[in-house]
Amino acid sequence: MRTFLVKIKYDGSGFCGWQVQEERRTVQAVFQQTLWDVLKEQVPVRGCSRTDSGVHANEFCISFRTSCAVPCEKLPLALNAKLPPDIAAFDCYPVADDFHARYDCLGKQYRYLILNAPLRDPFWHTRALWYKYPLDEAFLNAQAQDYLGTHDFSAFCSAGSDVTDKVRTVSQCGVRRLTDDPRLVEFTVTADGFLYNMVRIMVGTLLQMSAGKLPSGSIPDIIASRNRERAGATAAACGLYLNKVLY
Amino acid sequence: MRTFLVKIKYDGSGFCGWQVQEERRTVQAVFQQTLWDVLKEQVPVRGCSRTDSGVHANEFCISFRTSCAVPCEKLPLALNAKLPPDIAAFDCYPVADDFHARYDCLGKQYRYLILNAPLRDPFWHTRALWYKYPLDEAFLNAQAQDYLGTHDFSAFCSAGSDVTDKVRTVSQCGVRRLTDDPRLVEFTVTADGFLYNMVRIMVGTLLQMSAGKLPSGSIPDIIASRNRERAGATAAACGLYLNKVLY
Repeated sequence: MRTFLVKIKYDGSGFCGWQVQEERRTVQAVFQQTLWDVLKEQVPVRGCSRTDSGVHANEFCISFRTSCAVPCEKLPLALNAKLPPDIAAFDCYPVADDFHARYDCLGKQYRYLILNAPLRDPFWHTRALWYKYPLDEAFLNAQAQDYLGTHDFSAFCSAGSDVTDKVRTVSQCGVRRLTDDPRLVEFTVTADGFLYNMVRIMVGTLLQMSAGKLPSGSIPDIIASRNRERAGATAAACGLYLNKVLY
Repeated sequence: MRTFLVKIKYDGSGFCGWQVQEERRTVQAVFQQTLWDVLKEQVPVRGCSRTDSGVHANEFCISFRTSCAVPCEKLPLALNAKLPPDIAAFDCYPVADDFHARYDCLGKQYRYLILNAPLRDPFWHTRALWYKYPLDEAFLNAQAQDYLGTHDFSAFCSAGSDVTDKVRTVSQCGVRRLTDDPRLVEFTVTADGFLYNMVRIMVGTLLQMSAGKLPSGSIPDIIASRNRERAGATAAACGLYLNKVLY
């Protein structure tokens, strides 16, 4: 038996998130069926996180144990030949026997894309939040620095989560306008873990500050309140990308 | 009665091209129904060109005459509110009474995108040709200069065209690797007109030169032959974008 880590990308617009659900097309359901076909073995498959319906991944990590003798460097090509066009494997390597893609994860980076343009764009419909009012990326970047550090992020967690410890450490956070397409504003955040909808609420809060509906400098107060109602609305799933997974 | 020119963008992956066809979802069918709803008038709609199934447009121009009093600067927003997410209008202005989007067109620019990477990418599946072998963009750019000038492009026209005069003037042609995403190689070509599948055959020919299946420097001979069989295969529709329309 060997344990492998596989990295995939997926366009989440055609999936109801990662986790297997009855009667729904999910990334896990599609990926594990393909993996089982390739390995000729129905092994349990562990994903690095749950993702919501419509959320994308530039890098999503999966671990599994197998007795199949396939060389690991051949696995991405073998998987890609059978995976549908909206999922692709791009890396695979052997890991420690007891490695678990979710429990051994030390941190993740998410990216959130905003199409900041007066008119919508058909090429970004499912891949960015369309926001038509002007955004000042320098202002937003300065505000976003208040997310840094170790805090109880209860105010940035949607109802429906059964997690009790809501303390997380944000190690990187920033907002910039892309040079290649200046209509796109990118929010990135790296932390040791994320609560349910945390990134999308962080973005929604910044957008409300931009619109003057929340005062500038209010993030520390919102965090301290631990009150979900103090933070902004949950920004749409389509702008969110799991970008990096740290082990 | 006034004559208007409207500019739209569309993601062609969900359309069977521009032109109305029975029982098929086409850009013209969707756009004109929406326009008629907005104008409350069923006016003829002229597109600047036919595009094939799966081909995209960053800029596609449409003209029509209307007695509707709607201010032209309000038309893009009014249309966008009713158009599906894969089409968006972004400009509208008044033109001469007898203006026709197709017959008054002086030239067009097309863009063809190639995802040049060893592994496929779910985000580019319907938006670029995936080509996994290395491409030398400087070599291809040098070869592509042989397309410039006024030539009979019969060798670059698919069967099924009823056009008799196959002389076209190519005024710009180039290949470059994008700086923001160096996996993407872009072919652009500007001409006073294009034959059926002309851009896709130009790209297919360059790819065969890259693969050593056609000798470098062979484009002038292929053009002179006027023989479709001498040129390369027709590259996939998904990489092609109508980029600019010149009046």
